[in-house]
Amino acid sequence: MAGAQGSASAKVCRDPFSSVPPVRVGMKQSVVRPPTETDVARLAGVSQSAVSRAFTPGASVAEQTRTKILEAAQELGYQPNLMARSLATRRSNIVALAISSLENPFYAQVVKELSHRLAETNRHILLFATSPEVEADPALERVLSYQVDALILTATTAPFELALHCQKAGIPIVQINRASKLPGISTVSGENRRAGERVAAFLLAGGHKRFGYIGGGVASSIGKERQDGFTEHLRIKGVRTVQVAFGEYTFEGAAAAARELLGSAAPPDAIFCASDYMAFAVLDVARREFGLNVPGDVSVIGFDDVPEAGHSAYDLTTYSQPAAALVAEAIKIIDIRIARPQGRAIRREVRGEIVVRGSARVPIG
Amino acid sequence: MAGAQGSASAKVCRDPFSSVPPVRVGMKQSVVRPPTETDVARLAGVSQSAVSRAFTPGASVAEQTRTKILEAAQELGYQPNLMARSLATRRSNIVALAISSLENPFYAQVVKELSHRLAETNRHILLFATSPEVEADPALERVLSYQVDALILTATTAPFELALHCQKAGIPIVQINRASKLPGISTVSGENRRAGERVAAFLLAGGHKRFGYIGGGVASSIGKERQDGFTEHLRIKGVRTVQVAFGEYTFEGAAAAARELLGSAAPPDAIFCASDYMAFAVLDVARREFGLNVPGDVSVIGFDDVPEAGHSAYDLTTYSQPAAALVAEAIKIIDIRIARPQGRAIRREVRGEIVVRGSARVPIG
Repeated sequence: MAGAQGSASAKVCRDPFSSVPPVRVGMKQSVVRPPTETDVARLAGVSQSAVSRAFTPGASVAEQTRTKILEAAQELGYQPNLMARSLATRRSNIVALAISSLENPFYAQVVKELSHRLAETNRHILLFATSPEVEADPALERVLSYQVDALILTATTAPFELALHCQKAGIPIVQINRASKLPGISTVSGENRRAGERVAAFLLAGGHKRFGYIGGGVASSIGKERQDGFTEHLRIKGVRTVQVAFGEYTFEGAAAAARELLGSAAPPDAIFCASDYMAFAVLDVARREFGLNVPGDVSVIGFDDVPEAGHSAYDLTTYSQPAAALVAEAIKIIDIRIARPQGRAIRREVRGEIVVRGSARVPIG
Repeated sequence: MAGAQGSASAKVCRDPFSSVPPVRVGMKQSVVRPPTETDVARLAGVSQSAVSRAFTPGASVAEQTRTKILEAAQELGYQPNLMARSLATRRSNIVALAISSLENPFYAQVVKELSHRLAETNRHILLFATSPEVEADPALERVLSYQVDALILTATTAPFELALHCQKAGIPIVQINRASKLPGISTVSGENRRAGERVAAFLLAGGHKRFGYIGGGVASSIGKERQDGFTEHLRIKGVRTVQVAFGEYTFEGAAAAARELLGSAAPPDAIFCASDYMAFAVLDVARREFGLNVPGDVSVIGFDDVPEAGHSAYDLTTYSQPAAALVAEAIKIIDIRIARPQGRAIRREVRGEIVVRGSARVPIG
C-alpha cells in the first residue's frame, strides 16, 4: 500500500502553493483563520460597508473602489459568505434532498437532474441519504438545523414531526414518488395507476395468460397504485388471478420475489415489476436460474425507463417515468410555495408511455 | 394528466395541518416568517440569551427553564439556526462534494457511502454535479460562496483558482480518483498501476494472445496509470502490441471503442476496461453486435467492482476499488487537515484485488 503523509509545520505555512502569507490571529499562537470583510477593508484602505456593498449584487460602489476591493479580496483569498448573507435575506439557496435507494439508477438520475436544474438558478442540494427500511429516518430531523429554502424527498416519506415543523417555518416540502396523507406536503409522481392499466392491456394483447406482479413494499402507496391499475384492468377483462410478490425495491428482494413466482406450480408467463431495477433482477433470475427464454417463456415489463433499460444486456420493455420532467415539476412547486408559502399542497402527475423493447411479447396481429 | 393546484389565501393560513397560527410581522401585510429566538423568548417568558443557551450543547440553563423554552419552541416551530451558529464557530458541518458521472454506479455508490459516513458525525453533503467534459466547471467556483468545512472532488478536478482560494481560506481539498499536480490537494485512489499489472498477468495465464485496453479519456491520469501497468507488464512478458481505444468513461463512448477494437483486422481476445461501467458496454457490443461468446471468443475485465458486476446479466470479472474504503480515507484526510490546515497534501491508495467471475477465461491448470 502506497501513500505518504506530508510532514506538517504548526508555525509556518510552508506549502509552496501558497504565495500569500495567511492572516494570523492573536499573538499567542500562529493560527491561520479565513480572511474576513474587515481584513479586506483594511488592506484596500476602505470602509467595511464598502466591502459589503462591493459583494452585494446591485449595490452602489465606485468602480475604482470596487477594483481596489476585489484586488485585496483576491490577495487575501477572501470570499463573501453567502450563509451570513442568508441570515438577512432568509434565503440560503440551499434545497435539502432526502433520498434513499441511490443504488437504483432511477434515483441517481433524479439527483443528477435536480442538481443541474437547481444550479441554473445558483442553488444547490444539501443531501440527506436516508435508509429505505424505515419510514422516518431520524437523520432527517437534522434538516431543520440548516436554513434550507425547501425540502425535497424522494423514495422516502417526511416524518410527521418534520412536516409540521417545516409547515410552521414556511419551508415547502415536495415528495417525489411518494404519496402523503399530510395536507401540507406537495407531491410529484409518474402515472402509476394508468401505467398499470396500460401494461395489463399490452400484455393481454400479447396473448399472455398467467400474470404476476412484483411490487415494492406492502406499504408503498405508489406501488399500490401501479398494482391496482394492473389488477383492476385484468379483472375487467376477465382475469381473476394475479400472483403478487414484493421485492422491497431492492435487487436482492426482487430476485427472491422472482424465485417465488417462477418456482410456483403455475408460474406466470408475464410479470410486471414496479421498477426497472427490480425487473433487471427478475430477468437475471428467469434466464440464469430457471433457464427461461425472455420473452418466449416469460415476458417482463418494468417501470421508470432508466438508461440501463435500453442496454442490450437487459433490453427491457417498460413504462416510462421521465426523471427530468419529475424534477422540473418539483422545482416549479418549490418556487410557487416559496413565493406564496400559505397555499395548499400541490399534486402533479408526469406523463409516461410504454417503451417497447425486447423483454415482452408484443400484441399479436 | 392529473394534478390540481390548491387555491391559496394570501391573508390567512387556512391549511388544516397547521394548528398554531404563524407569527406575523408588521401590520401592512400579513406575511408569514419563520419564528426567531426572540419569539421563543417572548412566548416562554425568558430572556433571549436563555433561549440561546438552551440550544447550545453544554451551556448551562435551569431544567425548568429549558422545558419552558423547548415547549415554546415546539409550539412556534422554532429551530436553532446552525448556519448562524457556524458564523461564530467557523464550522458549518457541511462538506462540499463535486461529482460528475452520477450515471456510473460507482459514483452513485461513492455519494451514498460518503453521505452515510458523514452523517455519523452530523455532517452533510452540499452537492455540486459538474460536467465530465470540462476540466474545470465554472459552477465549482460557487463552492466558495458557502462556508464549507472541506471540499471533496470525485471524477473531476479542482480548477487552479478554486484550489488557490481554498488553500488560502484553510478549506482542505481531497480528490477521489483524480491525481493533482497542485501541491495543496490531497488524493485518494484505488490501485491503478498494480491493477493493470495484475490483470495483464491474469489474462496471460489464461492463454490470451491479443490484448485490448479501453481507457477513459486521453487526459485521464488514473486511466493512464491503469494502462501503463497493463501494457508495461505485457511488454515485459514479450507482448509488444496492445490495441488501445478511449471510451471517455461513458456507456456510449465505450460501446464505440468496443466496435473499433472488435471490428479490427485482428481483434483482441482479451479486453481490459478502465471501469466496470465501460465494460458493461463492451459486453453488450461483443454479444449482441458481434455475436461473440464471452469468454469463449473474448474475455472482458473491468475495474471498480460495482454491485452490477455481480448481477448475472454481466457476471463481470473485475479489479476491485472499494468505494467504502475510498470514502473512509477521504474523511480521515479531511479531519486531519481541518485539525491542522497547514500540512502538506496527503496521498492514499486503497487496496483492491481481482474478483473472478464469468467474463474472462481463468488461468489454465
